[in-house]
Amino acid sequence: MTLLFVSTHEDPAAWTAELRARLTEVPLRVWPELPDPDAVEYALVWAPPPGLLATLPNLKVVFSVGAGVDALLADPDLPRVPLVRMVEPGLTEGMTDYVCQQVLAWHRRGPLFARQQREAVWRPVLHQKLARERKVGILGMGALGADAARTLAALRFDVAGWSRTPKSLPGVQSFHGPEGLAPFLARTEILVCLLPLTPETDGILDRRLFAALPRGAVVINAARGRHLVEQDLLAALDSGQLAGATLDVFREEPLPHTHPFWSHPKIVVTPHIAAITQPRTAVAQVVEGIRRHRAGQPLEHLVDRDRGY
Amino acid sequence: MTLLFVSTHEDPAAWTAELRARLTEVPLRVWPELPDPDAVEYALVWAPPPGLLATLPNLKVVFSVGAGVDALLADPDLPRVPLVRMVEPGLTEGMTDYVCQQVLAWHRRGPLFARQQREAVWRPVLHQKLARERKVGILGMGALGADAARTLAALRFDVAGWSRTPKSLPGVQSFHGPEGLAPFLARTEILVCLLPLTPETDGILDRRLFAALPRGAVVINAARGRHLVEQDLLAALDSGQLAGATLDVFREEPLPHTHPFWSHPKIVVTPHIAAITQPRTAVAQVVEGIRRHRAGQPLEHLVDRDRGY
Ligand SMILES: NC(=O)c1ccc[n+]([C@@H]2O[C@H](COP(=O)([O-])OP(=O)(O)OC[C@H]3O[C@@H](n4cnc5c(N)ncnc54)[C@H](OP(=O)(O)O)[C@@H]3O)[C@@H](O)[C@H]2O)c1
Ligand SMILES: NC(=O)c1ccc[n+]([C@@H]2O[C@H](COP(=O)([O-])OP(=O)(O)OC[C@H]3O[C@@H](n4cnc5c(N)ncnc54)[C@H](OP(=O)(O)O)[C@@H]3O)[C@@H](O)[C@H]2O)c1
Repeated sequence: MTLLFVSTHEDPAAWTAELRARLTEVPLRVWPELPDPDAVEYALVWAPPPGLLATLPNLKVVFSVGAGVDALLADPDLPRVPLVRMVEPGLTEGMTDYVCQQVLAWHRRGPLFARQQREAVWRPVLHQKLARERKVGILGMGALGADAARTLAALRFDVAGWSRTPKSLPGVQSFHGPEGLAPFLARTEILVCLLPLTPETDGILDRRLFAALPRGAVVINAARGRHLVEQDLLAALDSGQLAGATLDVFREEPLPHTHPFWSHPKIVVTPHIAAITQPRTAVAQVVEGIRRHRAGQPLEHLVDRDRGY
Repeated sequence: MTLLFVSTHEDPAAWTAELRARLTEVPLRVWPELPDPDAVEYALVWAPPPGLLATLPNLKVVFSVGAGVDALLADPDLPRVPLVRMVEPGLTEGMTDYVCQQVLAWHRRGPLFARQQREAVWRPVLHQKLARERKVGILGMGALGADAARTLAALRFDVAGWSRTPKSLPGVQSFHGPEGLAPFLARTEILVCLLPLTPETDGILDRRLFAALPRGAVVINAARGRHLVEQDLLAALDSGQLAGATLDVFREEPLPHTHPFWSHPKIVVTPHIAAITQPRTAVAQVVEGIRRHRAGQPLEHLVDRDRGY
């Protein structure tokens, strides 16, 4: 009974320190050190080499370091054991901070005033809506979307969310399903995408969706690069249908040096830093997951492979 | 019994429309139209010409359009009648939106990522504090400071306030008086100034105050330009004692085209737009003030001329 930690991205030191401190009853191996593959029952993984997990004959549960499991599910050799996505307060709160930062920046015309500063132009804008007069819409009301919605409502924004199933969150209007999308978009001045990447949501931020927003809306994508149809965004910004966009995620990361998004006057680019799983709080979730599994209790945050999230 | 509306800054149309709609029992005059000075008992003023109010023999109450009354009190001929400063939800909420925007921008290294975008550099920063780990301090816990503090606490920031008298706001640590300033500053990573301008607070944002903050702190001034000693700010930014500043108010406004703040890489300049009194909600406050005065009830938000606010 061993936990294997696999990460091809992160510096593992912070993770192994937390795992050693908290995982007192379960031995730990850190990939590529793997003397006894048969002993591995649990794996905690971030971008594992494709095929690696299939070499572990006694694997019982896979825990993802990231909230999104689209890359994991793309491995055809992923063993058919329970897959747990990451839901942990550090990730959730980091995303909420980022979303509130970006929503407030557009709400208060941050990019306009930054441009005026570069030109040393003093031009006050007297017609400024209050948060309560600004309609924000969140695509995806899961662990991240729901917390962002709750906090935006505490900032007094007029918030709605769109999800597969209806939700009831105080102060947040709920829209759901394909038929709920058009009315949700029609009311949304600032749109935030926090959907998982699935066959149904791939390319959802496209020309048709932009056209369903009120003219001059803003789009913030902090989910996955593949949600966005890049040419459609550029066209909607050019036509004025969209007034701006903040993008944290891209089809190709790092965003290529010559990509038009970098220098576009209406696009804010951040380098996939919206929310980062925090080893301290995340390891506590994994330890609790292993405890539940060993006690025969149901696992939380299980991925439904048919839905894709 | 007449209300005189005096504004040398604002376009009066929005104000007079609201006043006409709501001030049903009191005749309205809009300066410079002033056929019968003896009839004026109430004045609602924004930057009135010095001496003007002294020509109204039957003036009973002066209502200020702005929250800050430092400019009014500087008129030596200001009649010794009750002076009511502006406290209204539009102004308060607008300031809270601005403060939260600027605090989140520094918290999440907005200026750094903006610079990286201009250089088309993809350099994620993995060590990002959460709001709950960031200590924000508000100088001035009045109508504006208290609402900003409450909302920053809802964003999960670790918030403290400094005022003349102690406060008790849930989730917000209170410091007060001259002896409370040093411990308040010692804990504050992002400092927000929302003090009124008085002889005691003039120049409070100086070298000594900056030195009492932890190294790398950020200062946001949304109160009055004279709170800040400009040369001391530049020196503290140069030495690295301060990491950045957001300034909405200046000793000279508009900020002169050649002023070094415009192009300083660590300074964010906005053109005095943090919060603007909203005619609709503000007129409701003035109408209520007149009603109270006529009913012999005590006026709210009275300025204490000895304190200067
Ligand atoms: N940029 C970053 O740094 C970063 C960091 C972390 C995560 N992310 C991204 O954020 C995504 C969301 O994370 P999460 O933990 O909040 O996921 P989650 O808890 O699984 O929530 C997903 C939400 O999307 C909704 N949804 C899924 N498919 C839908 C569809 N076809 N139509 C309508 N609604 C649909 C779900 O509806 P139901 O509730 O009805 O099922 C749910 O509300 C992750 O998948 C990841 O890609 C990005
Ligand atoms: N940039 C903009 O767009 C904009 C817009 C509106 C207002 N403002 C500025 O914001 C200022 C604050 O407005 P407000 O309505 O919040 O004022 P307020 O309600 O009068 O509050 C003033 C606060 O400052 C504290 N204070 C005053 N002198 C102090 C001293 N010597 N030491 C410690 N604390 C002191 C007071 O303490 P106590 O509570 O103990 O009395 C009070 O908490 C205005 O005066 C104006 O200059 C700027």
